[in-house]
Amino acid sequence: MIIVMKRDAGPAEVEAVVARLRDLGCDAHVSSGQLRTVIGAIGDREVIQQIPWEAMSGVEKAVPVLKPFKFVSRDFQPDPTIIEVRGVRIGDPSQFVTIAGPCAVESRDQLFRTAEAVKRAGAQVLRGDAFKPRTSPYSFQGLGEKGLELLAEAREEFDMPFVAEVLDPRDVELVSSYADILRVGTRNMANFTLLQEVGRQPKPVQLKRGFTATVEEWLNAAEYIYKEGNHQIIMVERGIRTFETSARNTLDITAVPVLKNLSHLPVVVDPSHAAGRRELVEPLARAAVAVGADGVMVDVHPTPDTALVDGAQALLPSEFAALMDAIREVAAVVGRRG
Amino acid sequence: MIIVMKRDAGPAEVEAVVARLRDLGCDAHVSSGQLRTVIGAIGDREVIQQIPWEAMSGVEKAVPVLKPFKFVSRDFQPDPTIIEVRGVRIGDPSQFVTIAGPCAVESRDQLFRTAEAVKRAGAQVLRGDAFKPRTSPYSFQGLGEKGLELLAEAREEFDMPFVAEVLDPRDVELVSSYADILRVGTRNMANFTLLQEVGRQPKPVQLKRGFTATVEEWLNAAEYIYKEGNHQIIMVERGIRTFETSARNTLDITAVPVLKNLSHLPVVVDPSHAAGRRELVEPLARAAVAVGADGVMVDVHPTPDTALVDGAQALLPSEFAALMDAIREVAAVVGRRG
Amino acid sequence: MIIVMKRDAGPAEVEAVVARLRDLGCDAHVSSGQLRTVIGAIGDREVIQQIPWEAMSGVEKAVPVLKPFKFVSRDFQPDPTIIEVRGVRIGDPSQFVTIAGPCAVESRDQLFRTAEAVKRAGAQVLRGDAFKPRTSPYSFQGLGEKGLELLAEAREEFDMPFVAEVLDPRDVELVSSYADILRVGTRNMANFTLLQEVGRQPKPVQLKRGFTATVEEWLNAAEYIYKEGNHQIIMVERGIRTFETSARNTLDITAVPVLKNLSHLPVVVDPSHAAGRRELVEPLARAAVAVGADGVMVDVHPTPDTALVDGAQALLPSEFAALMDAIREVAAVVGRRG
Amino acid sequence: MIIVMKRDAGPAEVEAVVARLRDLGCDAHVSSGQLRTVIGAIGDREVIQQIPWEAMSGVEKAVPVLKPFKFVSRDFQPDPTIIEVRGVRIGDPSQFVTIAGPCAVESRDQLFRTAEAVKRAGAQVLRGDAFKPRTSPYSFQGLGEKGLELLAEAREEFDMPFVAEVLDPRDVELVSSYADILRVGTRNMANFTLLQEVGRQPKPVQLKRGFTATVEEWLNAAEYIYKEGNHQIIMVERGIRTFETSARNTLDITAVPVLKNLSHLPVVVDPSHAAGRRELVEPLARAAVAVGADGVMVDVHPTPDTALVDGAQALLPSEFAALMDAIREVAAVVGRRG
Repeated sequence: MIIVMKRDAGPAEVEAVVARLRDLGCDAHVSSGQLRTVIGAIGDREVIQQIPWEAMSGVEKAVPVLKPFKFVSRDFQPDPTIIEVRGVRIGDPSQFVTIAGPCAVESRDQLFRTAEAVKRAGAQVLRGDAFKPRTSPYSFQGLGEKGLELLAEAREEFDMPFVAEVLDPRDVELVSSYADILRVGTRNMANFTLLQEVGRQPKPVQLKRGFTATVEEWLNAAEYIYKEGNHQIIMVERGIRTFETSARNTLDITAVPVLKNLSHLPVVVDPSHAAGRRELVEPLARAAVAVGADGVMVDVHPTPDTALVDGAQALLPSEFAALMDAIREVAAVVGRRG
Repeated sequence: MIIVMKRDAGPAEVEAVVARLRDLGCDAHVSSGQLRTVIGAIGDREVIQQIPWEAMSGVEKAVPVLKPFKFVSRDFQPDPTIIEVRGVRIGDPSQFVTIAGPCAVESRDQLFRTAEAVKRAGAQVLRGDAFKPRTSPYSFQGLGEKGLELLAEAREEFDMPFVAEVLDPRDVELVSSYADILRVGTRNMANFTLLQEVGRQPKPVQLKRGFTATVEEWLNAAEYIYKEGNHQIIMVERGIRTFETSARNTLDITAVPVLKNLSHLPVVVDPSHAAGRRELVEPLARAAVAVGADGVMVDVHPTPDTALVDGAQALLPSEFAALMDAIREVAAVVGRRG
Repeated sequence: MIIVMKRDAGPAEVEAVVARLRDLGCDAHVSSGQLRTVIGAIGDREVIQQIPWEAMSGVEKAVPVLKPFKFVSRDFQPDPTIIEVRGVRIGDPSQFVTIAGPCAVESRDQLFRTAEAVKRAGAQVLRGDAFKPRTSPYSFQGLGEKGLELLAEAREEFDMPFVAEVLDPRDVELVSSYADILRVGTRNMANFTLLQEVGRQPKPVQLKRGFTATVEEWLNAAEYIYKEGNHQIIMVERGIRTFETSARNTLDITAVPVLKNLSHLPVVVDPSHAAGRRELVEPLARAAVAVGADGVMVDVHPTPDTALVDGAQALLPSEFAALMDAIREVAAVVGRRG
Repeated sequence: MIIVMKRDAGPAEVEAVVARLRDLGCDAHVSSGQLRTVIGAIGDREVIQQIPWEAMSGVEKAVPVLKPFKFVSRDFQPDPTIIEVRGVRIGDPSQFVTIAGPCAVESRDQLFRTAEAVKRAGAQVLRGDAFKPRTSPYSFQGLGEKGLELLAEAREEFDMPFVAEVLDPRDVELVSSYADILRVGTRNMANFTLLQEVGRQPKPVQLKRGFTATVEEWLNAAEYIYKEGNHQIIMVERGIRTFETSARNTLDITAVPVLKNLSHLPVVVDPSHAAGRRELVEPLARAAVAVGADGVMVDVHPTPDTALVDGAQALLPSEFAALMDAIREVAAVVGRRG
């Protein structure tokens, strides 16, 4: 931690900061420039980061040197985490994983038609939600446990693991009893009690970035899960909220290499929710492969114009097959099998 | 809903949209300009807003005419909602309500010293949290039920109702059994299962704006609570996330009159969490009164530099007393008793 | 400057940074923590800030301790700058200044009707533009020099100084030969050649904040003007671009006290351009007075629905008169005469 | 234009809007729903878009159906614009163009070493600026005309056309007399007098996106240039300002396909200025090729740690050579020769 004193801070104020650091068992390095005194605090990060330095008299600002997360950092584990689910390896630098399916499970017919199509085209993991967080209380909220049963049936029929969202800490055990991978959605990225519950499950967790979360906050959320004992975490970039409205969100493609530098966790991109519009999904998916992501997650629907959720962004099965071809070609260039 | 067709949409595509509207029991008004055809959809809002119009062939975009929320709208109830809690009237245009106390309850001594000070200075409602959502899993998470017991004790001692945050749907009954007002925090504004649970309680609810939520999304969240039967909702503006970093968040003071135009619900401003720095709290609180808010909520701490949460923004009791004087003077100018 | 080394930086990389600092005649304080080495650089700010430290091998990031601007800082001049124009004192803590008039000069009749009304209601400075920056090339671009002539005539008729925008470095002398105060608009805040030209004029300059500029960038722009010799700079907050679209921009009311802490320059708020809608202007103007601004600038038009620019935000003369009453009342509470 | 009336708008207010449309020679289609009346305005776009509809009594909002730009739109020209400069074809769907060189020209040696390296690695166009817009007035501002002379010399020596920024309308003729392609920088995207000047030159213009401009505003800026007679416009995406600070800006990769849908103009991506950090440049450049851009523009410097501008983002010549290999491979997958 670096503590910058105010221009008019006096020696007693500097001394108070130094004394407090010493009380905490930390070292203090004082540098006095012409206009500001700066105190470098050296010692146990967790101790130092808990103190409200900016509330102390004479302190202008406190700048952390270290990130607040630990276990999910490359500092802690230099090698990439690879998560294996029914033979699919997510995070393996020689593989590229495609997750596809309907945004929400609406019916057996809709789910099975989609699952069959994405399987045939080459997707390795099925997606489909039974619980949907909806901005308006008047929108379709999902089929609940019935949806999970259908997903489990589709898993056996088409031999694909599936991922499903969990919204409520009270549903974690239920969803975990069906799904191969749990998902914490974008609106729940900072729902810390939910993070703790999924952190206690024996299933991998997809952690979607909050659409207004910084990369650092996102890794802090992963740290919550990791700290509870679940180390199988997949980070999912799905676009952030900006001033631009020509697509639903702004896909933060830069977050992929940034995350790869900071953390050992796998990173997947969701171009469908980022774009919100079908015609943008394929170019964004190609970009995701090229930038170095470990996978993509794509919405597919047999009849998007009757979809109960997010129809405008769902690919038709034929469009998805074309996308898989494109993914495989770009993946080959970056040394991955798609 | 207004449906704008693509430049190259053909008559069959226009006809398909019109036919679908008719099937839904709605009217369709078709206007063909030189470059675009536009279809006005007239009928039941909830029916029309569920259809993924933008997924239909030839549709460029669908623009809603009506807001998606209903009960919390001035269209539904022109008169302001006034919420009465132990004699304090929130939302009454002739009153201005100040809520104050520590960000988190840390100990009996800390809470009681603060409560006594804010009561003496003129605050009407006590704040203090027992459950804290923290970005880092290594930060203090609150005293839990013990904190609620202390708050209940302080309520009796100082004759002030209190508000406390609830984080988890499983804790709603517990918090509701102690607190006079429940709070849904900024990170949970879109935690729909939590919204539904507080919507079933017989206690008023403070709904903090998500720091990245639009005013419309915030009113949708209020609609979730209202729809479950709880009509006592207090909207709390606490700053939004923008590119500017000179304060913790950007207080969206404009949201106050915007909300007053759109909704009948009371609006309170939290300058402490918006600013993140003590010296900004008083000017922002004055602005909140002047702009027409129904109240402010302010962090106070007897020794901010030992605070376990958000010390840098907490006022000292003496600073709070000065703030109350300023609030009363500005409130008088806008016709309120502070 | 604080230079944080990468986790895996070696002694040679640390030594290279230290050697470079010594070559520049600066001191280097090296602090080695368990996970990172940090180097404090002490010496001439302008020398240190020019070096691309982050391009050096082993450097993770360089964090400036001091702001990049100098003359416009409170560090340089603790007392507030007061600018006097024809008897109006802008920046005087006991005065509140209201600037009002049409957004653009459209005709002699429109300008004179507006000027008469705002003068009668108590405005001290007239606004009205002859050159308009318009997003679309198909919009009205202003009357040019003819507009300046009309403004000069109105100044004499109603005994009010006027402020007018200048867009192009080639027009600076022309506008300066007519106007009492020059304005650099929001789209030109980082137009450095224009800043330099107005910096050479003997007239005060209003510097509008770029709607996407940080406070620090805004003060850097002021530094450009100051450095050329013109010290009469008035900062104008006019709303920033955020994700929220319920008003045209998000008025950053917090920027007023932030700026007052950092700089000695006067600060004026433009609620009209921030809001973009007439009904929001009065509450935002009241908030601006309460938060501690030195003045407001307000659009007024005798017939807003025929305005060639920004009609939706212009107040009618009668609305402006009511606003002046509100301003005077709030100003009295904060110790200013409005 | 679609005009939505307020809930409480009366028949006279609706009639006034209709009458005004008729006076303009336009048609009005009135649709009255249960809660709102909506008026569709049909007629000359430029006439309708000039009227301040939202300033009329009873109007809630006016929603444009058509974009405000015309000539740069795919509606106006369906085929892509291809710009040829000394044999390099920018915008040709079978080519991928790499522009590379130093951010700023610092000396003959620095420029020539860089130019030689990028030419050898396969870049087709040289970049290098003689006039630099700098946030701080204390930073290096460029060599001026001397820099242009050096660039012209390098062009002959290495047989590459070059692009250089122009900052000031007074310098347009000068820069145009040397450079093969002019650049309008991100801070000047809305500098309308500069846009008009470059619009009168016989040289192609790179138009960088304002880092806070929407795609629509960016196309409006292009329209300014086009309208003056210069149709050779190259759009350059270089990252936008968001809340995320882990890279300098957020590269809006989605803007590439969005722009390709809306406009016929070529699109180039600048990963160097978006990232601000060397290690992010290659993955972002690969993503730019994969998403469908027509080219990239990359900063290269022989000794980045002595660079006078933006050293942290400059690639070494050896890194650039590796990047060119990667670009060619991804380009081949999307059917382009790089």
